[in-house]
Amino acid sequence: MAKNGKDKDKIFKPRPISGFLEWLPEVRLVEQKWLASIQDAFESYGFCSIETPSVEEIEVLAAKGGDADKEIYGLRRLAAEPGEEDGGRLALHYDLTVPMARYVAQHFGDLVFPFKRYQMQRCWRGERPQEGRMREFYQCDIDVVDMGEVSLHFDAEIPAMTLDVLSRLPIGPVRLHMNNRKILQGFYQGLGIEDVVGAIRIADKLDKIGHDGVIEGLTGELGLAQSVASKCVELASIQTEDASFADEVRAFGVDNELLEAGLEELTFVMLELAHLKPGTVVADMSIARGFDYYTGTVYEGKLVDYPDFPTVFAGGRYDNLVGSYSRQKLPGVGISIGFSRIFSKLVKEGRVEIGPMCPTEVMVACLPGSARSEVAATARTLRERGLKVEMYHEEKSLKAQMKYASRKGIPYVWFPANVEQSEHEVKVMETGEQAAADVETWTP
Amino acid sequence: MAKNGKDKDKIFKPRPISGFLEWLPEVRLVEQKWLASIQDAFESYGFCSIETPSVEEIEVLAAKGGDADKEIYGLRRLAAEPGEEDGGRLALHYDLTVPMARYVAQHFGDLVFPFKRYQMQRCWRGERPQEGRMREFYQCDIDVVDMGEVSLHFDAEIPAMTLDVLSRLPIGPVRLHMNNRKILQGFYQGLGIEDVVGAIRIADKLDKIGHDGVIEGLTGELGLAQSVASKCVELASIQTEDASFADEVRAFGVDNELLEAGLEELTFVMLELAHLKPGTVVADMSIARGFDYYTGTVYEGKLVDYPDFPTVFAGGRYDNLVGSYSRQKLPGVGISIGFSRIFSKLVKEGRVEIGPMCPTEVMVACLPGSARSEVAATARTLRERGLKVEMYHEEKSLKAQMKYASRKGIPYVWFPANVEQSEHEVKVMETGEQAAADVETWTP
Repeated sequence: MAKNGKDKDKIFKPRPISGFLEWLPEVRLVEQKWLASIQDAFESYGFCSIETPSVEEIEVLAAKGGDADKEIYGLRRLAAEPGEEDGGRLALHYDLTVPMARYVAQHFGDLVFPFKRYQMQRCWRGERPQEGRMREFYQCDIDVVDMGEVSLHFDAEIPAMTLDVLSRLPIGPVRLHMNNRKILQGFYQGLGIEDVVGAIRIADKLDKIGHDGVIEGLTGELGLAQSVASKCVELASIQTEDASFADEVRAFGVDNELLEAGLEELTFVMLELAHLKPGTVVADMSIARGFDYYTGTVYEGKLVDYPDFPTVFAGGRYDNLVGSYSRQKLPGVGISIGFSRIFSKLVKEGRVEIGPMCPTEVMVACLPGSARSEVAATARTLRERGLKVEMYHEEKSLKAQMKYASRKGIPYVWFPANVEQSEHEVKVMETGEQAAADVETWTP
Repeated sequence: MAKNGKDKDKIFKPRPISGFLEWLPEVRLVEQKWLASIQDAFESYGFCSIETPSVEEIEVLAAKGGDADKEIYGLRRLAAEPGEEDGGRLALHYDLTVPMARYVAQHFGDLVFPFKRYQMQRCWRGERPQEGRMREFYQCDIDVVDMGEVSLHFDAEIPAMTLDVLSRLPIGPVRLHMNNRKILQGFYQGLGIEDVVGAIRIADKLDKIGHDGVIEGLTGELGLAQSVASKCVELASIQTEDASFADEVRAFGVDNELLEAGLEELTFVMLELAHLKPGTVVADMSIARGFDYYTGTVYEGKLVDYPDFPTVFAGGRYDNLVGSYSRQKLPGVGISIGFSRIFSKLVKEGRVEIGPMCPTEVMVACLPGSARSEVAATARTLRERGLKVEMYHEEKSLKAQMKYASRKGIPYVWFPANVEQSEHEVKVMETGEQAAADVETWTP
């Protein structure tokens, strides 16, 4: 509002802010349903909700290291006085994993382990504007953290749960691609590669730069022999829907303890997931998931019907993430669903069925000749019976009221008894049928 | 995680951030229930959800004017390069009213009017740290915005809805205090006061500085006659539970059109709310709600059982809020529930009943002698039947498993059939009773 007379006519014309999503009510209604469905599914496994502040201390975010700090949005109090702390040590979180790790360390004594939590919150990344990336987005995370060690059964339950969760959304089948970091590390070590991290980083680009590109990188950048580089690429091409991947890897004849441990772990997890529908789970030696805190099983989820879509979920096992904030050994395993990334892409491509603009089931019309207090009482009674009920307040024509209900996608319009009409009547908007109804017993 | 060997042992010990709430899982579970209950209630009136980005352009926030900009948290990209726009034109919203007004202006052509929306989001205020105020908090808002004018029926429906919403929470009775800005403005104008805004601002401090303080302010600061100042204070002391306030005001003999319009509006709203339980609604001439964008009815909600608590909700009618962003005339009326303020105060005072740590209804135990795949199948079957089910994964003693269930507050523990026990059994944790149960038919 204008501060004074001079500015009275000043209008600030709003425009969308690049990277920050905002939906119309009819899309938001679908988004809410999807989020509620995910939450229900998480809770059906007994996971508890935590919600952390939107901000963390910059030192907490930085403790994880890596390039993440480049994408952080810091906060500053606009009205900070000179010398006053302006909130400059605070920044918006860029994922939910770091806040969860900090939470576990901070509240350690008040939690029960294994600690199973889900968390559905917005995250922020200060991506460069020109990249057109999302700067605010929902993630839906599940993690299990335990003291000392986490049962390997969770390495199977976490992705099974994720697949179950996603099967409740209309996004078609989802395929889980799974690997184990120990396989990659052990295999590379067994081949005598010194810069294992560097080699994995290059091999991880397989789907972007192709086989020849990876071989060029491994021989050129790292100076590996052609035969060694070839083996790395061949390893990455192994994909099996059962535990036979292990024999394919062993056939290379690479002898390494870590490799063998990784093969055993992944075999165990594959067998625990054998009850899932065939084709749902793939042991995929090309999955590396960067190279920061994962130490065992790693996951990536793909939408089968949309092969060009980004990863729908990702995660893995970490032995030392909470260790940045606590001397306790608190390993964990978790998965993060990139909710907004998937939802917004599907919406923008017109692949999400959009329904009404509001949750209303019944609109109670108010026509001349009706006693307003009775109309209001009708709406209250229907509402007390658990229905979602709007009352039309404006004194407008029947036509205007019907147009309102129709545009908003309200399925039923209720006409209370009035001087001209002794019974209540309900109109079904889809068919146009109208019939007498009892306010105490009617159901949609 | 450490970036290199040197930092390996560096631990960043996390601590709470002043002004940013974070709950343990058992409190969060209650918070979720409360928020869900509010959402259900909003939807039972057919209000649609919108969710706006956490940020607005600073110009949008500033367009509302007033002192609000002092409390804004601006964003800056920590990794911004010299000359690059660092997000400096963006700031976190400090309420949900301004974002709603901006949303309506921006999406005007895609909305149906009257536009009824609810919005439950976090807001941020960069309060000075030493004040110990909340810097991140949930608000739950409802507003109706219409083209040209908003039916006065909404002035009654909005607070009725709010009272209904709050009656579903265990916070005891809530009393609505209601006034109309036109009454204050008209009365003051009718008394010949020139600086009406200034006078209302002083009178608004009645409960802080008392009658004498207000009179001192009005006579001293504004130079009003003692008799005029007295009338202002007398007006503010009028409180009635029915529409009789109007006669009490008229008894002053102040003649003013705006005053009369305000009395008529408030009378109308009081009568529309006459169906509510006696004592729930008070026409209260001391309510002013600052003096920024409200132009008609104004509301304040108080917890009857906690008279020292801050306002639980507040709001009013505004004729020109959306006008900061659009040339359309889009008046509205709305209420904002200060969710976190109330919830956190009740929690901290121990007045909220805290239950279990997790939503789990049944924990399926896994004991030696059980085939793991059958245990897992039991958990899946119960889950498919709609129950919230955890499976215990660690190979630990019965005692350890029972301790886990007990500490988390899980009400039932399931023992699948195994080599020693031919039937499934369920233990009721509260009573210790254990009996045979059928996985296909058992209910809690």
